[in-house]
Amino acid sequence: MSQKMLSEAEGYDMLRKYDLPVPEYQIVKSGEDAAHACEKMGCPVVMKIISPQIVHKSDAGGVIVGIGSRKAALSAFTKIIDGAKAYDPAAQIEGIMVEQQAEPGLELIIGGKTDPAFGKVITFGMGGTMVELMKDVTLRILPVTEDEIRQMIREIDAYPLITGYRGSKPRDEEELVKIIGNICRFFMENENVVEFDINPLRLYEKGACAVDARIIVTDKVQTTETKEERTPVPMEYFNPRSIAVIGASQESTKMGYAVLHNLLHFPGQLYPVNNKRSEIQGLKAYPTITAIPAPVDLAVITVPAIHVPRVVEECGQKGVPMVVIITAGFKEMGDDGKALEDRVKAIAKGHGTRIIGPNCLGIIVPPRGIDTTYVHQSPRPGNIAFISQSGAIINTVVDLSLAQGIGFSNVISVGNQADLDFLDYIRYVGKDEKTKAIILYIEQITDGKGFMEVVSEVAKTKPVVAIKSGSSKKGEHAASSHTGSLSGSYDVYMEAFRKSGVIAVHTLTGAFLAAQMLAHPKGFPKGKRAVVITNAGGFAVLSSDYAERYGVEIADLPREVIEELNEFLPDFWNKGNPIDLLGDATDKRFEKTFEVLARHPEFWDMAFIVGFPNLVLTSENLAKKILNFSAMTNNRLIATLLGGDSMNPGRELLKENMIPGFEELDFTFRVMGRVLWQKFRVKAPGLL
Amino acid sequence: MSQKMLSEAEGYDMLRKYDLPVPEYQIVKSGEDAAHACEKMGCPVVMKIISPQIVHKSDAGGVIVGIGSRKAALSAFTKIIDGAKAYDPAAQIEGIMVEQQAEPGLELIIGGKTDPAFGKVITFGMGGTMVELMKDVTLRILPVTEDEIRQMIREIDAYPLITGYRGSKPRDEEELVKIIGNICRFFMENENVVEFDINPLRLYEKGACAVDARIIVTDKVQTTETKEERTPVPMEYFNPRSIAVIGASQESTKMGYAVLHNLLHFPGQLYPVNNKRSEIQGLKAYPTITAIPAPVDLAVITVPAIHVPRVVEECGQKGVPMVVIITAGFKEMGDDGKALEDRVKAIAKGHGTRIIGPNCLGIIVPPRGIDTTYVHQSPRPGNIAFISQSGAIINTVVDLSLAQGIGFSNVISVGNQADLDFLDYIRYVGKDEKTKAIILYIEQITDGKGFMEVVSEVAKTKPVVAIKSGSSKKGEHAASSHTGSLSGSYDVYMEAFRKSGVIAVHTLTGAFLAAQMLAHPKGFPKGKRAVVITNAGGFAVLSSDYAERYGVEIADLPREVIEELNEFLPDFWNKGNPIDLLGDATDKRFEKTFEVLARHPEFWDMAFIVGFPNLVLTSENLAKKILNFSAMTNNRLIATLLGGDSMNPGRELLKENMIPGFEELDFTFRVMGRVLWQKFRVKAPGLL
Repeated sequence: MSQKMLSEAEGYDMLRKYDLPVPEYQIVKSGEDAAHACEKMGCPVVMKIISPQIVHKSDAGGVIVGIGSRKAALSAFTKIIDGAKAYDPAAQIEGIMVEQQAEPGLELIIGGKTDPAFGKVITFGMGGTMVELMKDVTLRILPVTEDEIRQMIREIDAYPLITGYRGSKPRDEEELVKIIGNICRFFMENENVVEFDINPLRLYEKGACAVDARIIVTDKVQTTETKEERTPVPMEYFNPRSIAVIGASQESTKMGYAVLHNLLHFPGQLYPVNNKRSEIQGLKAYPTITAIPAPVDLAVITVPAIHVPRVVEECGQKGVPMVVIITAGFKEMGDDGKALEDRVKAIAKGHGTRIIGPNCLGIIVPPRGIDTTYVHQSPRPGNIAFISQSGAIINTVVDLSLAQGIGFSNVISVGNQADLDFLDYIRYVGKDEKTKAIILYIEQITDGKGFMEVVSEVAKTKPVVAIKSGSSKKGEHAASSHTGSLSGSYDVYMEAFRKSGVIAVHTLTGAFLAAQMLAHPKGFPKGKRAVVITNAGGFAVLSSDYAERYGVEIADLPREVIEELNEFLPDFWNKGNPIDLLGDATDKRFEKTFEVLARHPEFWDMAFIVGFPNLVLTSENLAKKILNFSAMTNNRLIATLLGGDSMNPGRELLKENMIPGFEELDFTFRVMGRVLWQKFRVKAPGLL
Repeated sequence: MSQKMLSEAEGYDMLRKYDLPVPEYQIVKSGEDAAHACEKMGCPVVMKIISPQIVHKSDAGGVIVGIGSRKAALSAFTKIIDGAKAYDPAAQIEGIMVEQQAEPGLELIIGGKTDPAFGKVITFGMGGTMVELMKDVTLRILPVTEDEIRQMIREIDAYPLITGYRGSKPRDEEELVKIIGNICRFFMENENVVEFDINPLRLYEKGACAVDARIIVTDKVQTTETKEERTPVPMEYFNPRSIAVIGASQESTKMGYAVLHNLLHFPGQLYPVNNKRSEIQGLKAYPTITAIPAPVDLAVITVPAIHVPRVVEECGQKGVPMVVIITAGFKEMGDDGKALEDRVKAIAKGHGTRIIGPNCLGIIVPPRGIDTTYVHQSPRPGNIAFISQSGAIINTVVDLSLAQGIGFSNVISVGNQADLDFLDYIRYVGKDEKTKAIILYIEQITDGKGFMEVVSEVAKTKPVVAIKSGSSKKGEHAASSHTGSLSGSYDVYMEAFRKSGVIAVHTLTGAFLAAQMLAHPKGFPKGKRAVVITNAGGFAVLSSDYAERYGVEIADLPREVIEELNEFLPDFWNKGNPIDLLGDATDKRFEKTFEVLARHPEFWDMAFIVGFPNLVLTSENLAKKILNFSAMTNNRLIATLLGGDSMNPGRELLKENMIPGFEELDFTFRVMGRVLWQKFRVKAPGLL
């Protein structure tokens, strides 16, 4: 597949077809012609080098503006040619473009690129030569609605320059909306266009003009791969009544030992398969799966890679509906491994057998006593589903969950995704009744559009939190366009998550905190406005700091609320939000405050209750009042009981009732910042 | 104290005296005079309104540029006057300034403001009308060296525009250095100047020109307050052999009960003072302090505020060198409280008695069994000193420390700082042998310069970490200059911290992690370059992500290092940094890798070791190899043993040997990011 950049002239011609405002131009090959064109078009004109090798024309001195006469045009021609030759002696010069000089205006950039996972993406932001320095851009995955276009325009930092800033008149925002819409249409309709920059687009009080256009086309349009027709995986496949472990072992250093060991608590039938022993870990063993005298619903395969095709064939003959292939040594090892994996896939398909893995840890379904992995210790049952592209991260998360009292409905290691993939697992946990929140650890998604479709549906009823690794720019390929360098593939993932209802986080800790926050039936807060109630002045100030940092709005207290609080709070209370109930506040004082807030639910969307340990307030009593408060309001409550073990009774009580509680105040607001990012596009520098 | 803004003309005149390049100008009061001035000066000219009420001239249409003729000058005059009248009918128009129009150039801003705590501050950054949108500024507390000026210039995001960007020629950086130096001199030498903006300063390929100047002067120069001559507090005051508790109580709900209770473990003499009982909590009680038949080194006062003057008088008579006044109800309660506090201060001073508090929790010195506070449970002895302006935060931190196994050398609640203040406490813990790291929780500092002096000295030998609350912009006063709105008082604190060797953090958790990181004798890493060694591909990718996010540089592996690693690592290892030793890595493989790195210490400054729990590697064995590695190198090591309790043996071993260890990978890099901010001014969006 080869790509080339259209000349600016070709670009202008293409854009004009989509009603986009471009300047008049003429291509010349001599100084005399340039002078002539300049006279014909009317001064001033701009002259620009045309050379496929010179991408950044300004760098090569290849752009001269404000040419106001015949004479100036003659001299500009020579200067540009000389400059280009000096810059790159090998550059092929196709001519010089003489174009009408557009009036100065607000310089914007509109660009497009094709993301390998999510397809065509449009970017918009501040343009001009400083575009990489300013980095004030936003992006959307196509298609977009007019509303989304309006939102893009409003969300750049420089938006005040469009609405009129410091005495300058407002610019033609309506025209800009129309132009971006047309550009999206141009990008969608021309399949061969893979990337482009319009930079700058000059926006005026009335109208606009695209002053430069770089359009990259491909000669081989990527047709959407015809997706393999795949039957959805029936839910009962994840609820087997019998499991065989092929490669089960008696030697504690073998993987087949650990896997069987972790399955010993499985309440259904468990069959070790091993052709050398008749008993393993106290269970009767069978030489092959076909020798088992009863149906097998799930087979876990731990034999060396080279034996896997044979074993899968036997599973097929036995009529096993699904196998977990733990064994590594397939696609991840190069071409030979890929060939082996393809063989296994073909064999399984022939029998209608589905595959989890290979090169994975398999699945853990704690509510059903299933654990096909070799983790140190099986996790507890709970309501979180964790789906991961990294086995090490599963080991870590499971180990951590035991220390932190976190339970799982499902833990799934996707491995090479030879058959079942991320989408299948998301569909499954989306339907799984035990699952109340879903956490994804993603390294790479291949079918981005499919992912967005599936996850959008699931996210309507269950919170989905995702960690996407690989944000580091180091090692990303140098981009040939501004758009390419301004928005990396990580940014596209973030936008895909936002658009699909997924909460993007950056850490494992953050993922669990966010899931915990949203697992409560009240779900997302209905807005961004918060009240903070605390018994510590220090934490009141820090709450304001953190709220601002993470995009949580601290609401002003209405006069009637202040008056109602005046009735029972000490005279010198701060009469503001955060509401500082003072160090001598008892649970009674909290309770009365909660009652006032519950009577006035309209000015706030969420309440942060921040308590610290002291002699007049036990965590348990505070927690009880918080529970009452939660029952009195539809708004969201978030508790932060600061301190050590002395706060545990209160924390436990809240946890039992699914009121999210945090132990570090910063995290409380940080988590909410990410929730608000998802729901309201709140931009905040705080990562979670 | 009243402030006024100089007219632009006065400003230009003032700046010219400091060799600053300003345009020629003339003030006119009629269109005719304007036209005349324009002819005399040579076109083009700029005309600007002069009105004390109109601060942002552009907003009022009060600036017209590019006036190229007599006629244009006449019409501009009318237009400006009409515009100003429309903008603010009450505005007093003093005339119009006609000035030579400076050539377009790179627009910068240089500003100055007077911080209430730290004095005069200079800011520098991208200028022009978009200055508030770009927010690309940096600041320094005066005085500054030429090196610091050069650093300021280099650290703005738009610095490439000065060195030459995208085909534009480099600007006159040397002239800029000279200009900023002269402006600093101007600001330092003119005590009446409290705030100013030079915006824009246009920087050319050769030279520069200040195109606008707003200078705010005060008619009452604030003379540096003559500091009360104060004797330093002798170290032994914090090591009393006998302590009296005045207001000691037998009733468990009283503060005097809790305070005495927390002192019961004090190994010296402990004397309850209570005029109603002869025995309290099993100890003989005295009716007054004077009745105690032996010397008292420290008195802790818990009686109601109204009795405090009498009690302090008695302490003075008894010759008690220092008192802790826990009681509240002083300066923090307004004028009457302030008067009471002043009386207490005067009484104490008369006797040479020093005061901790009032309105504080007092001090905890765990290695000496001293705890004058009413915290739930006394903290353990350790090597961290914690000094706090919030009592609630002390309660929380002490409670948390018990759960997390953190110990303290000192915990100090500063209260109203009637006598002993932050600086005294910092000096004390700076000299205290048990203290290896210092954490400050700061709400406000009054003597900023004194703080910088004292803390800079202490930070040379002990890490100092500070949390400054009050970063929120909400509620800060609207500023009359760009400089005021661009750099808040929080930014000045951050710069003061950076300059004084203090690590600024934003959370309590972060403060303890940073203190832990730096308490190791190796102190700060010598540079920013890191190697990461892990046994998990997933964490290798996340390490790269986090490193980039927090400003840690991932070093390239030299060829000889790769070759040496090739000798024992599996063929398909990633041959890059992070070094992925793969999931089957034993402690032996880690050890060999450490040996290679120890032999090549020149290409890295710190090593992050990231281990996850699995069957082939115990945390204890990994920790042992890390300890050996640490002994082999002078570079810093940071361990991250991810997972739950199964990693505790290794974590304990590292902790005993002061190798910092973290449980969340993000925090590892986040902490290092703040350390690098302090040492190398690394800018990173990650807060800690």
